[in-house]
Amino acid sequence: MVDRFGPAFRSDLIELMRWRRDVRRFRTDPVEAAVIDRCLVAFCLAPSVGLSEPWRIIRVETANARGLCLTNFRTANAAALAGYDGDRAKIYADLKLSGMTDAPVQLAVFCDEAGPKGAGLGAATMPETRAYSVVGAITHLWLAARAEGLGVGWVSILDPDLLAHDLDVPQDWRLIGYLCIGWPEAESLVPELETAGWETRSANLWMERR
Amino acid sequence: MVDRFGPAFRSDLIELMRWRRDVRRFRTDPVEAAVIDRCLVAFCLAPSVGLSEPWRIIRVETANARGLCLTNFRTANAAALAGYDGDRAKIYADLKLSGMTDAPVQLAVFCDEAGPKGAGLGAATMPETRAYSVVGAITHLWLAARAEGLGVGWVSILDPDLLAHDLDVPQDWRLIGYLCIGWPEAESLVPELETAGWETRSANLWMERR
Repeated sequence: MVDRFGPAFRSDLIELMRWRRDVRRFRTDPVEAAVIDRCLVAFCLAPSVGLSEPWRIIRVETANARGLCLTNFRTANAAALAGYDGDRAKIYADLKLSGMTDAPVQLAVFCDEAGPKGAGLGAATMPETRAYSVVGAITHLWLAARAEGLGVGWVSILDPDLLAHDLDVPQDWRLIGYLCIGWPEAESLVPELETAGWETRSANLWMERR
Repeated sequence: MVDRFGPAFRSDLIELMRWRRDVRRFRTDPVEAAVIDRCLVAFCLAPSVGLSEPWRIIRVETANARGLCLTNFRTANAAALAGYDGDRAKIYADLKLSGMTDAPVQLAVFCDEAGPKGAGLGAATMPETRAYSVVGAITHLWLAARAEGLGVGWVSILDPDLLAHDLDVPQDWRLIGYLCIGWPEAESLVPELETAGWETRSANLWMERR
């Protein structure tokens, strides 16, 4: 087998993964369409169960749609804060957990649970693999965006059914993630949750043998 | 912002994604530990909701454990075949849908639904984001493996509860995917399901604006 990619590329790929962050602080200047389009090419190259390609994207642009999504986040975030107390509550209250007020590009990414593509192959005993396919596509986009210097933030502090309703999507679509995309205010090797004292990365991977 | 990665790397990254395949045909020669370790570094650099890092890996090595997993696959695959008829059934019967008899490295990847890490941040309204974090990690590993020339095949035609039982993992672990890893017999730009006439890639991404 040819070593098609080589050691320098492999090393850069790991660097890319090291520099990838969940970004919540964006500059508001626009992102050229060509850059987003390149990220979407990466998105579509993801594997999908049975080649079902169940991903559907709503690009959230109007002030009305953005307002509904932001209210959704603020409500869910207030409820989440109420679930913590003591030091945890104090740290949580200070966290910035979404860039929805600033990010120039915002994508609500759904999984179509009912589309016929793929004819159900690979999803009979594990139907959740359709949603997983969409997560893989988001991961591709995330890496491609970082390679462009763009930041991506995945917002999950949302009522997914309300968001689907507010964006008026078909009944069979399930929200996978709400992505904020734009030029980041800063770049860092350290996750913001670690800087803020919420949680740290593990030193070791949990693995056992059978 | 510095262009840390540059256009040549970005172009290679897209090439990597184009050449990534779901591989089911492996050579049986072993993979050096150092190569697998580099892929696991990529795995651990994935984002996780609240920095929960809920991934747990069982490396399936003994003949007994592999036999149980293979029987699980064969049973689920026979049941899946029985759900198709006509041309679909004929194509399905001829598909090779797992490399479990040959792949030298086999990983059962789980999500620990109950681990305390991350303190639930980001997962209150969408608890499935813990599983999604594991999918992101698998996607990282998949790309890193392909960059090494390794093939990865994600097997989902399995009874996940039976597999968890057979591998004797804790109650709170949910199977995300069973990965076959090894040197592929061949490399291709075309998904095997497309070559076999099961399904084709879409020409366009579904996106609407709101």
